[in-house]
Amino acid sequence: MKKVIFVMGVSGCGKSTIGKLLAKDLNVPFFDGDDFHPESNITKMSSGQSLNDEDRQGWLETLNQLAKKQLEKNSCVIVCSALKQKYRDTLSNSIQKDTEWIHLAGTFNQIFERLNNRANHFMPSKLLKSQFDTLENPKDAIQVDISLTPEEIIKKIKQELMNTSEFGLFGLGVMGKSLCRNLANNGFKISMFNRHVSGIEEDVAKNFKAHYPELSQAAAFDDIASFVNSLQQPRKIMLMVNAGKTIDYVIEDLLPHLSENDILIDGGNSNYKKTKERFDYLKTKGVQFIGTGVSGGEEGALKGPSIMPSGNPDAYQKVAPFLETIAAKDKNNLPCCTYVGPEGSGHFIKMVHNGVEYVEMQLLAEVATILKALGQNPDEISNTLETWKDSASSYLLEITTAIFKKKEGDDWLVNKILDKAGNKGTGNWTTIASAELGVPSTLIASALFSRYTSFYKEERLELHTHFEKTITSQLQISTKDVLEAYQFARIINHYQGFKLIDEASNKMEWNLNLSEIARIWTNGCIIRSTLMEELVDIFKDTTNILTNPQLIALVNQYKPATKKVVSQCVLNDITSPALAEAIQFFNGITTAYASANVIQAQRDYFGAHTYQRLDDTSGKSHHTNWN
Amino acid sequence: MKKVIFVMGVSGCGKSTIGKLLAKDLNVPFFDGDDFHPESNITKMSSGQSLNDEDRQGWLETLNQLAKKQLEKNSCVIVCSALKQKYRDTLSNSIQKDTEWIHLAGTFNQIFERLNNRANHFMPSKLLKSQFDTLENPKDAIQVDISLTPEEIIKKIKQELMNTSEFGLFGLGVMGKSLCRNLANNGFKISMFNRHVSGIEEDVAKNFKAHYPELSQAAAFDDIASFVNSLQQPRKIMLMVNAGKTIDYVIEDLLPHLSENDILIDGGNSNYKKTKERFDYLKTKGVQFIGTGVSGGEEGALKGPSIMPSGNPDAYQKVAPFLETIAAKDKNNLPCCTYVGPEGSGHFIKMVHNGVEYVEMQLLAEVATILKALGQNPDEISNTLETWKDSASSYLLEITTAIFKKKEGDDWLVNKILDKAGNKGTGNWTTIASAELGVPSTLIASALFSRYTSFYKEERLELHTHFEKTITSQLQISTKDVLEAYQFARIINHYQGFKLIDEASNKMEWNLNLSEIARIWTNGCIIRSTLMEELVDIFKDTTNILTNPQLIALVNQYKPATKKVVSQCVLNDITSPALAEAIQFFNGITTAYASANVIQAQRDYFGAHTYQRLDDTSGKSHHTNWN
Repeated sequence: MKKVIFVMGVSGCGKSTIGKLLAKDLNVPFFDGDDFHPESNITKMSSGQSLNDEDRQGWLETLNQLAKKQLEKNSCVIVCSALKQKYRDTLSNSIQKDTEWIHLAGTFNQIFERLNNRANHFMPSKLLKSQFDTLENPKDAIQVDISLTPEEIIKKIKQELMNTSEFGLFGLGVMGKSLCRNLANNGFKISMFNRHVSGIEEDVAKNFKAHYPELSQAAAFDDIASFVNSLQQPRKIMLMVNAGKTIDYVIEDLLPHLSENDILIDGGNSNYKKTKERFDYLKTKGVQFIGTGVSGGEEGALKGPSIMPSGNPDAYQKVAPFLETIAAKDKNNLPCCTYVGPEGSGHFIKMVHNGVEYVEMQLLAEVATILKALGQNPDEISNTLETWKDSASSYLLEITTAIFKKKEGDDWLVNKILDKAGNKGTGNWTTIASAELGVPSTLIASALFSRYTSFYKEERLELHTHFEKTITSQLQISTKDVLEAYQFARIINHYQGFKLIDEASNKMEWNLNLSEIARIWTNGCIIRSTLMEELVDIFKDTTNILTNPQLIALVNQYKPATKKVVSQCVLNDITSPALAEAIQFFNGITTAYASANVIQAQRDYFGAHTYQRLDDTSGKSHHTNWN
Repeated sequence: MKKVIFVMGVSGCGKSTIGKLLAKDLNVPFFDGDDFHPESNITKMSSGQSLNDEDRQGWLETLNQLAKKQLEKNSCVIVCSALKQKYRDTLSNSIQKDTEWIHLAGTFNQIFERLNNRANHFMPSKLLKSQFDTLENPKDAIQVDISLTPEEIIKKIKQELMNTSEFGLFGLGVMGKSLCRNLANNGFKISMFNRHVSGIEEDVAKNFKAHYPELSQAAAFDDIASFVNSLQQPRKIMLMVNAGKTIDYVIEDLLPHLSENDILIDGGNSNYKKTKERFDYLKTKGVQFIGTGVSGGEEGALKGPSIMPSGNPDAYQKVAPFLETIAAKDKNNLPCCTYVGPEGSGHFIKMVHNGVEYVEMQLLAEVATILKALGQNPDEISNTLETWKDSASSYLLEITTAIFKKKEGDDWLVNKILDKAGNKGTGNWTTIASAELGVPSTLIASALFSRYTSFYKEERLELHTHFEKTITSQLQISTKDVLEAYQFARIINHYQGFKLIDEASNKMEWNLNLSEIARIWTNGCIIRSTLMEELVDIFKDTTNILTNPQLIALVNQYKPATKKVVSQCVLNDITSPALAEAIQFFNGITTAYASANVIQAQRDYFGAHTYQRLDDTSGKSHHTNWN
């Protein structure tokens, strides 16, 4: 990889000496910037006048031209004080990616002493002082302490120059691998790490690199120290390992090798509370921590996932170029990746995303059950779902349509699958978060518990023998009714999911932007849908989608069919807990006077818990001796 | 309080000296047991023969008579070696509660030396050895080290004698006060503590004692050290303070004053995981910890609550006489208190108890809503519920019947109560435990979330304006239908609650006895009912009540009405989430082939999560490329 290496620093820092040594060592051409001043500048300096920025501009452009021309052939070393950022911007104009900055740094006293010890050189302290005043410390330079010996300085610079990877990926499971390929496909120079476990995980990174041409520039490691040292500072390392304790072990393994301001990104499905704890812990170590949800599965991770990062906004800025580049793009070609908010808010919304996903999946499973009860075989179910694309388009509808088409021999594959649904924690956590935060996310709980119930397969088979299912009547519903009930429940599902996010945002003071969250969920992730796209705009006006006129109209339109479908399911012993709960919850949240007065009376009766009164708006507690 | 104080120990321990000093100090009569031997014993001893147990029996009975006679007038001190437990049993026969034992304890060498330094006394070492061989160390005696000076010994004995409370109650809130009165009414000598908070909680214990005659023998404290020192060892202290951090603070406040083997009992609604942590922590301090659920509210605590203690079985044995005495009694007059199991199992089942309670309350609230929709006013609702007593008797039905009768002026009080239901954590925890343990406790979640939904009163009022409720038809159900739906849902509720307990017991290896748990819930607690009484027997045969023939018949009998009620509610916009979920869950858990196959296909499609197949019982994971 060809590079222009600029060696910079105030007068007397040793630029020329070090620059020449470095060029010699690397076997590349050396240029002293001062040799390229135009005649006019030389005349001005000779007359004792100092150059102003206008004088410098042409000269800096000349050096930029030189650098570009050199790059075509080879690397090179150019020496130039380059004290201001704008000088450096000119010098590296349009070749930023191929530029390395070496800043030889020392204190005023160090340099003043060194200058005045030189035989044929004298610089008044006032002049050196003005150099220090002008110096704007570069942020992305390799900074080297001039008190080292020249040999040490060269060694250090070479070490740092070898660390050329921009981004590290730790953990090469399904998602980690896909993200690596995504990063490489986008032109990033990455380092990839996977642990070595004898006989089980050997040369994982190396073999992975060998397998995909796009990874030819990537560096593969199974040694943590080498992996970390291969990264440019501040290092950016994305962890794609199992959520839970593993993350903490990995952090402890990495810590001894990290430097201040390095950034760790946890891209797993970590619990949002743990992310906050890790954020706080790493802060004490001077390391930045970004917890980010990543949705899209294997394919999404490869082609563009939805990414939900949270943490320190400054740290996010440093990783944004990577994450936003590899993310999916929304319909306006903006990345489906945004800074979500502080602490564990990124993992929180990913958790809710998965909860909403559980419900969308459960609703489709119930829909399929009803269509089956209406006499449709899997092909017909698939055909029905296919026609719903126009009004209820979503990724999950799309794959479910495909699933019901899939045959194995003469039979449909879906009918051969064991009816025990797995779960990996986030649906569970969403239900727990709802319970903890006091928010009724009833559909997520319903979808979770349906999976749990499915898991008791043996008990179901036994109980099935005791309780005969009886069809009391033919199902008196149409497929259009089913579609409308499905749409109704989906609106309630999205209402509940975003309500949970909004309440968490309020309680934790995260200041989350619901519209932005909906936007980054319009592509790349599992719950992308046209409904989600509509929510992007709706959330610009309100945090409660049931106050949006368009959705109010839809809900009122869908409700009669929903009532019909749910009641018919009940009368015909068809299990549809999420559809049923959607209508129950809707009735509950739109009831002006709920039955909770009875519960308050009961609580006051047996536990003296007191109650408030409708006719006393002061909020005072009342107690009655009910006996 | 009059006491017989026996001073005991081997020959030469200093019984007579100390006994006389003590009697003089307390200003009570002194008796030397040796003065009461019958002539025959004196003759035998004079002839150099030692007494056998038969010889001693009459003499010990004489001393017991003496003690009883003295007790009628005054306290007294009686000196007697009383080396064996059976001697002591005779001495304190029928006056155990009024007897104090002082054991003057020293080593063989200490006493041998002391004896042989006495001028006119010589005891061969063999004789003293036989005394030590005979000595059975008393368990409940005040043991005093004879190497102290007589003055120190008297001081120590007096100190210990003042510590006469058998049981301590820490925290005099509503429940703490009721338990104190309950203990005192049952004849226990208790110490009561409440903290001092200037201007807010001052002299709480003292004033409480002054208010109730039954507390005249109780000791009142607002100083922790005095409170702890007032208790007999091993101390038994029941904490009735707010669950959560407060318990930990209280434990830290108490610890410096406690001795090894003292027992703390947490009677609050603590989280079962925390109880396990505290149990483990206190074990390191040599202190026993019993976490116990207490149900019954203020009145139950006073007249007899249901008590659910767990922890170390030995520690439980020491507190059982207190807890079992103050507990409610079941129909066979056995205490509604039993050793539940290890760790936090007592608090776990109390948590589930409260979850089941949430559902029973919610079902009654829904029932009332439906009866109202059928045109009944509160009086009529109350009358309807009254008639349900025969078939669905429960404490909660009873109080709800009373609630709907209660008038305030011309109007019913229940109609004036604000419809925002409160909750204090345990319903929330039960839902969290279900989610964590993988058990579908759907009704508890439903009842919890109904309370949460009720809490969004302002939002409900707003949304109510957007969504008109439409009665599509007259309600085509009878009150009998409603009763049957209620009964159906209650069976499902109890099924789910006990399933959660059973699964927790299996996972945590608690070995809980469901029948015993049902039994201690048949009285004293909020969810007592005839159904619970039936479960006591049912759980002797099965852990799954839906396999019991009697309940299978009832469920099949109730189901048609339940379907009618739930579907009619849906069609008429009547909110009845728990009734609706009861039928949904029942359908789910009795379905031989659930729709979870669809979910497994979806998960495999987008996340390569794999699935199992019906035709492959090996449990192997399969993956399909669905595209």
